[in-house]
Amino acid sequence: MGKTYGIVGVGAIGGFYGAKLAYSGQEVHFLSHSDYRFVKERGLQVDSCDGSFHIAHPNVYHTPTDMPKCDVVLVGLKTTNNHLLPELLPPLLKENTLVVLIQNGIGVEDDVQQMFPGVQLAAGLAFICSAKTEPGRVRHQCYGQINLGNYSCRDEQLFQDVITDFNAAGVTAGFVPYSEARWKKAVWNMPFNGMTVALNTQTNLLLQNPYTRQLIREQMMEVIGAARHLGVENIDEQFAEKMIRMTDEMTPYSPSMKLDFDFHRPMEIEYLYTKPLQMAREAGFRMHKLEMLEAELRFLS
Amino acid sequence: MGKTYGIVGVGAIGGFYGAKLAYSGQEVHFLSHSDYRFVKERGLQVDSCDGSFHIAHPNVYHTPTDMPKCDVVLVGLKTTNNHLLPELLPPLLKENTLVVLIQNGIGVEDDVQQMFPGVQLAAGLAFICSAKTEPGRVRHQCYGQINLGNYSCRDEQLFQDVITDFNAAGVTAGFVPYSEARWKKAVWNMPFNGMTVALNTQTNLLLQNPYTRQLIREQMMEVIGAARHLGVENIDEQFAEKMIRMTDEMTPYSPSMKLDFDFHRPMEIEYLYTKPLQMAREAGFRMHKLEMLEAELRFLS
Repeated sequence: MGKTYGIVGVGAIGGFYGAKLAYSGQEVHFLSHSDYRFVKERGLQVDSCDGSFHIAHPNVYHTPTDMPKCDVVLVGLKTTNNHLLPELLPPLLKENTLVVLIQNGIGVEDDVQQMFPGVQLAAGLAFICSAKTEPGRVRHQCYGQINLGNYSCRDEQLFQDVITDFNAAGVTAGFVPYSEARWKKAVWNMPFNGMTVALNTQTNLLLQNPYTRQLIREQMMEVIGAARHLGVENIDEQFAEKMIRMTDEMTPYSPSMKLDFDFHRPMEIEYLYTKPLQMAREAGFRMHKLEMLEAELRFLS
Repeated sequence: MGKTYGIVGVGAIGGFYGAKLAYSGQEVHFLSHSDYRFVKERGLQVDSCDGSFHIAHPNVYHTPTDMPKCDVVLVGLKTTNNHLLPELLPPLLKENTLVVLIQNGIGVEDDVQQMFPGVQLAAGLAFICSAKTEPGRVRHQCYGQINLGNYSCRDEQLFQDVITDFNAAGVTAGFVPYSEARWKKAVWNMPFNGMTVALNTQTNLLLQNPYTRQLIREQMMEVIGAARHLGVENIDEQFAEKMIRMTDEMTPYSPSMKLDFDFHRPMEIEYLYTKPLQMAREAGFRMHKLEMLEAELRFLS
């Protein structure tokens, strides 16, 4: 009855969730491109606020064609590497494999579904502060919850089993409505990811300055306005206030795009900005301030 | 019949136009705070694309109370120093003195008129690339035109005489409708001043990147939309295109706000952004992208 898990991308996300599942006894197969040698030799280390642990001998592979087909594939790649999926995914897919995209942004599932028309897709919405500190080593600072939104999974049982497996592995997981969840996440992601880059700062300083605090609020309201135009209900002004208060209480934080920028890695502008801006515009709604932020990020990238 | 001119602020603007008038034979009195000693000893030097010249012994003063009252006062201060005007201006004012504010932004005349309810005011719209390179020395790189907009000048003859005097001094000058001219200038100023600061760049690079080129265009259209909401006609999309083409042909340029930022001087956010944004908002029009730019500048200042 045990399921097999494939992990594509052993970084802050894939490394963490894959290691948690493996540590709980699931059969997990890791596809690691750049860190293969390290992980093979030294295993996977998770330095976690919830208790650190080590996977001494993970099933790690350098090439997808060496891997077994899996029941569930968790994709932890940055979306900037999604052009690699046509090469990486097919060897791992059975007829009914569920692919969970634990990725940032809006529109990722649409594009991946176009690459693999028949595949079952879910969105994995991770709420976590984690970072790959060195090859084969993930630092998990806080949070860790993951919610799954069903994009095109026909096998309800499989979908539910994944949630159950996560919870059994000590990862709080639940079901969320797909579009609502993606857009709710964008309410935080779109303002903070880009603004920390544009102003070379951290979340707390953006909220301490009254002008940028108000700007962040208005950008959040733009996302909420776009979501509503696209038929997503259950998301209102209260939610923006909640996100701001939550961020007030977080330790000073550099979102993933800021880290990408600082380390001269490509930024996920396409799915964090371009796609949602385009979807909103096509639905007749303009996110003016976030359009400006996209242009600034394009200029800086 | 000769008029007397007072110059408040002997920098890139006041230094240039004052020196031109003096060199043409007008009686000009310069009020110089920080550079008084230099100008007194070494005179005023203008290194100009139209021919350099030197004023060996200008009438220069350290204190306004030492100065004679003048027929015309040209204010070349940064607007960030306008809080000094209640101290600097009164000693220079006759009953009918015309005060010309050669300053950036929107709303300056409103505020200065409130300080001096009876005084005759005009806006001086300088189209010039110049910089103070050292005390008593102005480098005039190109252009130099100045247009006067009548804000509250009752003495039509005096107003016309100033234009005549400028032209006689080799400065192309003309009459422009006040609001239209201020808003037309803002079409260029609001996008380029702030964006060169926000993205730490120059005009040409903003226009070379297709994303920021489009952003600049949209910001210009915001200013044009605001102007029209405030009853300013004669300003349309064509004008934005014209400004963009003109800037394409300029040498790479750092606007005054960028220089202020680079040299850690206060930026003119108030009259370049806050006031026009507020005027537009009160008239029911939002300049969303320029609101965001204001917030970014406030954060950076």
